[in-house]
Amino acid sequence: MRAMIAALSMGLLAMAPGSAHAGGDPEAGKAKSAVCAGCHGIDGNSTNPQWPKLAGQHAIYLVTAVHAYKSGARKNSLMKPMVQELSDEDIEDLAAFYSSQKQK
Amino acid sequence: MRAMIAALSMGLLAMAPGSAHAGGDPEAGKAKSAVCAGCHGIDGNSTNPQWPKLAGQHAIYLVTAVHAYKSGARKNSLMKPMVQELSDEDIEDLAAFYSSQKQK
Repeated sequence: MRAMIAALSMGLLAMAPGSAHAGGDPEAGKAKSAVCAGCHGIDGNSTNPQWPKLAGQHAIYLVTAVHAYKSGARKNSLMKPMVQELSDEDIEDLAAFYSSQKQK
Repeated sequence: MRAMIAALSMGLLAMAPGSAHAGGDPEAGKAKSAVCAGCHGIDGNSTNPQWPKLAGQHAIYLVTAVHAYKSGARKNSLMKPMVQELSDEDIEDLAAFYSSQKQK
């Protein structure tokens, strides 16, 4: 039951404006991704296995993850300062870019 | 400086026994993955875009993520009960399996 409530809550979260729809612009996201490339690779294929590959990942998942880093719901001392200044549009653009890339 | 300390800490974490080396057995992981498949797909390609694709992800990243769910460092009310009973070996086997799969 708790799992069901959690699943429903996350479903509602996914429908919240700006939090999880995949309406970003991949070209705009590419232009904004330079600072991410240091760890995640130019095309989202990180070479250091400590950092996740983002290439080909679901955009909605990426949007949700970045919002969680930004809010502190998902605690990460490296990611928080990287995403702190991103707007909802920036986050959606970046997610659209990475999800459009091919995993290698 | 703080970022550097965090990076060093995560580097040390990655070297800790059982936490992040990719020594798992993909075949054993496949056999253990049935319960994960409901959300993440049989081969780690989740069809629901709320759940991340695991196929082709770095094994070390997957190991670290599951340990973080298990310890509560990464809070997730759906994932915590799913990983609570996994041993270090289970986690490495699962990570080896998913990282060996092809992202679709």
